[in-house]
Amino acid sequence: MGRPAQRVLVAGGAIGRFGRFVDQPLTAIATPVVRDALATVGLTTKDIEAAFVGNAFGGALAGQESILAQVLLAPAGLARIPMRTVKNACSSGSDAVHLAWSAIAYGQYDCVLVLGAEKLTHGDKARSFAALASATDHPPQSGGRSVFMDVNAERANTYMARYGATPMHFAKVAVKNRAHAGLNERAAERAPLTVEGVLADKVVIAPLTRAMCGGMVDGAACVILVSEDFARRRGLTGSVVAASSVVSGVPEGDAEGNATHRAAQAAYESAGIAPSDVSIAEVHDPSAPQELFDIEDLMLCPRGGAIALVDEGATSLGGRIPVNVSGGLTSRGHPVGATGVAQILEIHEQLAGRAGAAQVAGAKVGLAQMAGGLLGRDSAFATVHLLTV
Amino acid sequence: MGRPAQRVLVAGGAIGRFGRFVDQPLTAIATPVVRDALATVGLTTKDIEAAFVGNAFGGALAGQESILAQVLLAPAGLARIPMRTVKNACSSGSDAVHLAWSAIAYGQYDCVLVLGAEKLTHGDKARSFAALASATDHPPQSGGRSVFMDVNAERANTYMARYGATPMHFAKVAVKNRAHAGLNERAAERAPLTVEGVLADKVVIAPLTRAMCGGMVDGAACVILVSEDFARRRGLTGSVVAASSVVSGVPEGDAEGNATHRAAQAAYESAGIAPSDVSIAEVHDPSAPQELFDIEDLMLCPRGGAIALVDEGATSLGGRIPVNVSGGLTSRGHPVGATGVAQILEIHEQLAGRAGAAQVAGAKVGLAQMAGGLLGRDSAFATVHLLTV
Repeated sequence: MGRPAQRVLVAGGAIGRFGRFVDQPLTAIATPVVRDALATVGLTTKDIEAAFVGNAFGGALAGQESILAQVLLAPAGLARIPMRTVKNACSSGSDAVHLAWSAIAYGQYDCVLVLGAEKLTHGDKARSFAALASATDHPPQSGGRSVFMDVNAERANTYMARYGATPMHFAKVAVKNRAHAGLNERAAERAPLTVEGVLADKVVIAPLTRAMCGGMVDGAACVILVSEDFARRRGLTGSVVAASSVVSGVPEGDAEGNATHRAAQAAYESAGIAPSDVSIAEVHDPSAPQELFDIEDLMLCPRGGAIALVDEGATSLGGRIPVNVSGGLTSRGHPVGATGVAQILEIHEQLAGRAGAAQVAGAKVGLAQMAGGLLGRDSAFATVHLLTV
Repeated sequence: MGRPAQRVLVAGGAIGRFGRFVDQPLTAIATPVVRDALATVGLTTKDIEAAFVGNAFGGALAGQESILAQVLLAPAGLARIPMRTVKNACSSGSDAVHLAWSAIAYGQYDCVLVLGAEKLTHGDKARSFAALASATDHPPQSGGRSVFMDVNAERANTYMARYGATPMHFAKVAVKNRAHAGLNERAAERAPLTVEGVLADKVVIAPLTRAMCGGMVDGAACVILVSEDFARRRGLTGSVVAASSVVSGVPEGDAEGNATHRAAQAAYESAGIAPSDVSIAEVHDPSAPQELFDIEDLMLCPRGGAIALVDEGATSLGGRIPVNVSGGLTSRGHPVGATGVAQILEIHEQLAGRAGAAQVAGAKVGLAQMAGGLLGRDSAFATVHLLTV
């Protein structure tokens, strides 16, 4: 792999409100966010040289599979330029960010727009579950819940047996992220939870209760990446993309770990950043236990060490290494293709010191991680971005 | 837009048989073609640094929308590396080629694989038509035929009124391309046609008869692009990608022409190649009349001049500027995401002098054009590639 020719900055963008907008078409959800992103950064459509749209289920759930990029961007005035829809399950949005980063880092463009957008709710809930199930190469095995929750539960049971975690630890994660979401006015779920309430909630599949799992949520986020030169010329400031690492899974398993772990290793190495340098992380937590596995895959602590982090409150706002200060997938919500783009913007705002009540004091290095789909026992795809001030 | 850092070569690849494989899953259609491509070029999966999969309707018609790249490539042994599915309607495959070209031309990678694959047939034919209709931002308006044929017919009627073309000219194009397909053992439709037979065939929508229109076809094609350095190190030869130009449409119309015209202008300019230099072209002809419009949009002749080219046989094999020597979309077949990739390989084989009975003598500059979807009156996306020996 060649060395990048120039540094890439996150110039800014916009995150729409995440929530259940069953009656709204995806254009109504996404296009205003594109306009907001341009206005926030102070650019016009003429500045944008190319666009990537991350979306996982536009065909299955929004009736638009093949020209979604144009359908969502044209009403915001983006025409003529190269644009396309990128599919990589939950990491569709973060892969779109990676492709935009690549196009700038290697000198093709100087200003690229990334939209992540998803309409996940559907009048017929079975359609939503069927779409999610298609993000795996597993045969469908569950009714009335996402196939991913079966896999999450199995991992949680293995983790409990191996490291002594209990459902209480998972409940603490859910409570922590809901408290974070309470500070995020764009989050889908903001009403406070208690550990007792989470544990007493309806069982989805043991040890997961409903309050430990994310629901079906719609939303959009739009980020604009620029070259350092472009930023200088236009008087823009932004956080630096220190690493954009993406990998596919290994279906038959892998002694090195998993896709997230491999993406993290590559990201730290290419950025010259150690896990101990990370000030804040947004990770892929479709269920609460997965946040602990991610933290360990990302080497933010040793294997099994995430249990102590939870008990100590280290991953809470104000703790040593705050994780999912946005509320994460379970509370901010997970409109699939939008999530990876939103993560980048959440980290960007934190590094800029503009996160208000949710600000992590002195945040200098932020990490955003997504894992998409399932391929055998591994994620089909995983992405790790490192951002610095 | 920055200048490319290195030249990109088409190292080779493989095209599968195009046809109606209603009972075969997309993996059975696509994965063997990936293996063939690697074997043909003499590379292994370890040589491939990244992959792009072009597909338009995998969600709607093959039940796999969000991780199709991994599902099709993993069985061929491609894991770990970055891969994703790219959606841009009929130009999904050629946009995937563009993204692979970009990644090499600007120095990110040296060896990238592109798979174009589509399962377009479906037990329920209405599903196939509904999927095609979703490649537009138009409300569905036709029953029992592709919405694109309505647009093609309208354009054909306008063209006849303006330039004096008759249905006979369209029939001649269909006959010519079917004769070409007779030389292509991978083509979907090879039985010879006559002008009288085409004109007497069932009317789809006037002036289009069934024999002027492509049918629903499945298929896959896989091309491997490499940097010039990589080719030298590995003893590979190949045609040079002299231009890879992609643009989105302008929904409200455009005085400059249309997406194909704009993509062509950019391609000629960046390659320093004139339309008169082109020896052979593969163009996007979902119906026979569209081939004439493409030829003119590509400036291979003046407006209205394609009529004379047809009458003179100039676009036939042996003529001055052979077009769709593969058989084109109507006869070779148009498995949507696969077509743009197949075009690149058809041109590549011609430039290498390996096209056998279909060889265009002295072919030195080849052009491949695709247009994807509809956005208002324009294509949603268009791609023009120029290849040279």
